Amino acid sequence: MMKALVSIVMGSTSDYAVMEKAAKFLDEMEIPFELNALSAHRTPEEVERFAKGALSRGVRVIIAGAGMAAALPGVIAAQTALPVIGVPIKGMLDGLDALLSIVQMPPGIPVATVGVNGALNAAILSAEMLALSDEGIAQRLKAYKESLKQKIVKANEDLSAVKFRFKVN
Amino acid sequence: MMKALVSIVMGSTSDYAVMEKAAKFLDEMEIPFELNALSAHRTPEEVERFAKGALSRGVRVIIAGAGMAAALPGVIAAQTALPVIGVPIKGMLDGLDALLSIVQMPPGIPVATVGVNGALNAAILSAEMLALSDEGIAQRLKAYKESLKQKIVKANEDLSAVKFRFKVN
Amino acid sequence: MMKALVSIVMGSTSDYAVMEKAAKFLDEMEIPFELNALSAHRTPEEVERFAKGALSRGVRVIIAGAGMAAALPGVIAAQTALPVIGVPIKGMLDGLDALLSIVQMPPGIPVATVGVNGALNAAILSAEMLALSDEGIAQRLKAYKESLKQKIVKANEDLSAVKFRFKVN
Amino acid sequence: MMKALVSIVMGSTSDYAVMEKAAKFLDEMEIPFELNALSAHRTPEEVERFAKGALSRGVRVIIAGAGMAAALPGVIAAQTALPVIGVPIKGMLDGLDALLSIVQMPPGIPVATVGVNGALNAAILSAEMLALSDEGIAQRLKAYKESLKQKIVKANEDLSAVKFRFKVN
Amino acid sequence: MMKALVSIVMGSTSDYAVMEKAAKFLDEMEIPFELNALSAHRTPEEVERFAKGALSRGVRVIIAGAGMAAALPGVIAAQTALPVIGVPIKGMLDGLDALLSIVQMPPGIPVATVGVNGALNAAILSAEMLALSDEGIAQRLKAYKESLKQKIVKANEDLSAVKFRFKVN
Amino acid sequence: MMKALVSIVMGSTSDYAVMEKAAKFLDEMEIPFELNALSAHRTPEEVERFAKGALSRGVRVIIAGAGMAAALPGVIAAQTALPVIGVPIKGMLDGLDALLSIVQMPPGIPVATVGVNGALNAAILSAEMLALSDEGIAQRLKAYKESLKQKIVKANEDLSAVKFRFKVN
Amino acid sequence: MMKALVSIVMGSTSDYAVMEKAAKFLDEMEIPFELNALSAHRTPEEVERFAKGALSRGVRVIIAGAGMAAALPGVIAAQTALPVIGVPIKGMLDGLDALLSIVQMPPGIPVATVGVNGALNAAILSAEMLALSDEGIAQRLKAYKESLKQKIVKANEDLSAVKFRFKVN
Amino acid sequence: MMKALVSIVMGSTSDYAVMEKAAKFLDEMEIPFELNALSAHRTPEEVERFAKGALSRGVRVIIAGAGMAAALPGVIAAQTALPVIGVPIKGMLDGLDALLSIVQMPPGIPVATVGVNGALNAAILSAEMLALSDEGIAQRLKAYKESLKQKIVKANEDLSAVKFRFKVN
Repeated sequence: MMKALVSIVMGSTSDYAVMEKAAKFLDEMEIPFELNALSAHRTPEEVERFAKGALSRGVRVIIAGAGMAAALPGVIAAQTALPVIGVPIKGMLDGLDALLSIVQMPPGIPVATVGVNGALNAAILSAEMLALSDEGIAQRLKAYKESLKQKIVKANEDLSAVKFRFKVN
Repeated sequence: MMKALVSIVMGSTSDYAVMEKAAKFLDEMEIPFELNALSAHRTPEEVERFAKGALSRGVRVIIAGAGMAAALPGVIAAQTALPVIGVPIKGMLDGLDALLSIVQMPPGIPVATVGVNGALNAAILSAEMLALSDEGIAQRLKAYKESLKQKIVKANEDLSAVKFRFKVN
Repeated sequence: MMKALVSIVMGSTSDYAVMEKAAKFLDEMEIPFELNALSAHRTPEEVERFAKGALSRGVRVIIAGAGMAAALPGVIAAQTALPVIGVPIKGMLDGLDALLSIVQMPPGIPVATVGVNGALNAAILSAEMLALSDEGIAQRLKAYKESLKQKIVKANEDLSAVKFRFKVN
Repeated sequence: MMKALVSIVMGSTSDYAVMEKAAKFLDEMEIPFELNALSAHRTPEEVERFAKGALSRGVRVIIAGAGMAAALPGVIAAQTALPVIGVPIKGMLDGLDALLSIVQMPPGIPVATVGVNGALNAAILSAEMLALSDEGIAQRLKAYKESLKQKIVKANEDLSAVKFRFKVN
Repeated sequence: MMKALVSIVMGSTSDYAVMEKAAKFLDEMEIPFELNALSAHRTPEEVERFAKGALSRGVRVIIAGAGMAAALPGVIAAQTALPVIGVPIKGMLDGLDALLSIVQMPPGIPVATVGVNGALNAAILSAEMLALSDEGIAQRLKAYKESLKQKIVKANEDLSAVKFRFKVN
Repeated sequence: MMKALVSIVMGSTSDYAVMEKAAKFLDEMEIPFELNALSAHRTPEEVERFAKGALSRGVRVIIAGAGMAAALPGVIAAQTALPVIGVPIKGMLDGLDALLSIVQMPPGIPVATVGVNGALNAAILSAEMLALSDEGIAQRLKAYKESLKQKIVKANEDLSAVKFRFKVN
Repeated sequence: MMKALVSIVMGSTSDYAVMEKAAKFLDEMEIPFELNALSAHRTPEEVERFAKGALSRGVRVIIAGAGMAAALPGVIAAQTALPVIGVPIKGMLDGLDALLSIVQMPPGIPVATVGVNGALNAAILSAEMLALSDEGIAQRLKAYKESLKQKIVKANEDLSAVKFRFKVN
Repeated sequence: MMKALVSIVMGSTSDYAVMEKAAKFLDEMEIPFELNALSAHRTPEEVERFAKGALSRGVRVIIAGAGMAAALPGVIAAQTALPVIGVPIKGMLDGLDALLSIVQMPPGIPVATVGVNGALNAAILSAEMLALSDEGIAQRLKAYKESLKQKIVKANEDLSAVKFRFKVN
């Protein structure tokens, strides 16, 4: 049976609208993952069980999305030796509350923080970590990164189509 | 006749859209409460009368919601020995003006501040205070807190239904 | 033996410089209290044991000071039925990170937040809660609040001593 | 006997370090003024008495300095028909808390807010208001405003003295 | 012929949506006023002519609304002895740019700043200034201020109509 | 063949909605320009080639629009001797992230930053630079600047049409 | 006689501590410049005279430093066809007030803004503009930019000297 | 010969005061590392060479510290498949400019951001990534994490020594 290498956790169903991008990317990269709902504030015992058991279950990286006073990534990081990636989810105050709650961790317990609503980047970051010891992921990630340039190629085509009298290209 | 243990005050009818959650929670907890409109800036004498009379009328906790330069919670706190809970109501500047106006009280006159638009949390906090000397409230509050975990259970069910090729759980 | 009614917790010895004001105030009010070091990120199991055991040990209010991504107050609040007062401690970013990390709690788990470095106000707030069912504390708190006016009396005396040609009073 | 036309109020002796500039300016303009310590949170009844009595005592403008959750200017404004000028005093959060607490008043109760620690500007503003119906103040204020240009004259002299090989003037 | 006592200036037609409240209030108070479009950046000579001529034309107070890098109120204040009230108009950055651009004036040139989009309060403030030497305005302003309490009376009626099982009043 | 004097670059097709105003202005000023899509993060080699080749291709000013962690303007500035104008594009956090990422450049590598979404101003700024050595552009720019006053004329006409009983003008 | 190509203006002698870096750089680049004290708020007529006369006096770029509600750069830009570079000078609020007051200009009147206290970058930017039509400046600027890399070479030497057991280079 | 597994890069010698903590931690963990000075703005070609060569030289994780408009971490991340950890270094604006410039990366190019001046956490995070495939590092990291609890033990001893009449523990 396939074991999850990445565990994506979030605090509510509504967070999935943001975190879905992480799931899609991991699926595209053929990286087995799991999706779990956990809350540092509502189910602290579950969080503890999850964080302490993740390594032995085979999980290598944890991605935790949370909003407002976003304690989940830090609390998980406190109870595991695995790298934890935090995704600040925009709610109040433009997401600045979640960003600061996740990134400003005390010395000793880092959370690898990505931008507000940056679930896709969290997944890419997890793939980069896994790629350190998995050549297949490394290859697929490299292909993905190459494909990013297509956006710029496409944008240039779009801009080529724009017409002005004094536009040169 | 039933006496209000919690007094919910606010500055305008429009604030009730936010403060209603406090009313609903207290009702669910079977905690007698009252709803009053007061303004530190428009009816200061009423605020004084209210604040000074609350204790003798049987009120034990005051919840005050206010927006912008939100003086109401602090001005009430200045004139009563009861604990006052402040709810910053989002208006301008993402609610940051109301939050700072309520939480940054000078030494001697605390306001127990909850998050922006956090009326529900204000009501729960008032119930926690009352539960210190009321076993019935303590029991109902405990049940409520247990029920919060259901949200996570539900969220996990929702996430279970999500299908991906490389999703494990 | 005297039992602590208020438990003051913080994350490091250095936080005591701020939290000392809470200790002094409780001592002045003759409210038995305890001082403990805990960290949501470094000793999560201790936090859990502490939070779950506080009520049965006789604690009635918890005051938790924390800086930066200040998860401690919220994580304690998540595991106790007691009211939890959070004190944002200024470190980076003028304390705004700690303030938002403490006050912006999700629905269901309130933390009664006071201003940045507001340990004295946290202690007064705890006394207000205890005073709801303890007449002695209520009396001493009332006397304290009366004494605050002396600061203003003193300030007026100071200002009286200021001399200007066109100063009237 | 000389009656105060401007009343300068503040919450503590320490605020006088900032508010002194207002006193000095009024003295220079030969505008009778008074200095009072008041606190919206510590002596609300005194504030009420002060605010309601100011007009009949001959006061024409009130200048109120306050820091943090700076309710004093607004609470005074709520209880008088006189114009109230608010001076945010820098304490925590670079004075942003005081600024927002003073300036973001609800409709109906304006406070004429000046910059953080802007006591001198508050005094000038009060002189501008008085000058509307007092020719002597108008003349002295005009002379003062003219004198501001001397600062620029002086600065130009200082810059003239700076020597560089490629400096022209 | 009626002369304007208050001059309301703004930078564009679109600002009138905010500034209209000032016009309506002055009309209600029977205070003659004028409406002008001026821009510190687009028509600086017009601003100079306006600012320097206002006093002799009979204007007593100037209300200037502006957004973004809102220089208009300060530049007018620099060229007149009249009190200038600044209204920060919300555009980008939640109006914080306009607020800081207006309120943080250098020593010597005050602008009486009201809250973001606070045109009504600006008009009330101008009426307070005029009321210092006009009994009729003083009377109408007093009546207006009394009427503000009606909002609270109305809000209390609305809240009375709210029904809950444990609602007392 | 016409050579581009101004090069407008951006990171994606969606940025064109903001940057179009720059294109339109340059076209109106009859200043040859080009539109290119580049990304400091997705196509760094292209950025290098672009930045190093711009001068010899005849480009005189570069306008770079970017959002979020907006590195593009600075990275281009690092690799060219031409003046680079940066346009922060609003995405998250009200555009404050892009503004700070563009304007706070280290000593040695300036970016001429305009306001959030200020593409039109960027184009005007580029025209001002070109006008230093091109009389035709100088004339057209002068005419454009004159035309800005028409907005104020128009606004005054609009305000003239507003009717109130106590409105004077 | 040498004519100033760049005019550096500021509001007070104290600003020179920041603006001196611009003077030094221009001197090093052998670009004739002048230093002037001007204030949009204290000497508006001087600002007008300066702004309108700069072009005919031979000035090609204006660098304006200002703090707080920093109107100077924008007001100059409003009255000249020359490019104006704005330097926000840190005073209150970490310089954020000056930054927003300078950068958030309305459409039509750009100010090329550099970072807080970024006088050196302002001078480099002015040199980049002049270099568009002055080969000598272009050469000296190129040499200067090359020299920036020496800082990195020096830093690498410093880091080479750091010794750790597991440090490789 | 020992090969660096972690590469620590920074923009100037002065940044080493912050980044030294990362070096010390890696040394303590017996993880070979290198220290390099690089600048996205001053030596972009060196950055490119560094970023593209790091993987083949054996580097597994890159830690990049940068202040202000901190482009270095993102620009490196754009040119390598390795995980890049960004450390915002406090300079201006309390480090908020550096934090936002590093964390708010566009989709596709993540930077694992730690708190302001969080070099130690960056090093721990790099160790967590390496520990995924290096049992020795995993063991030493585990021991380190255990040792963090000693800080709390020590803090509790310190707090035990504090004496008050009403202190219980």
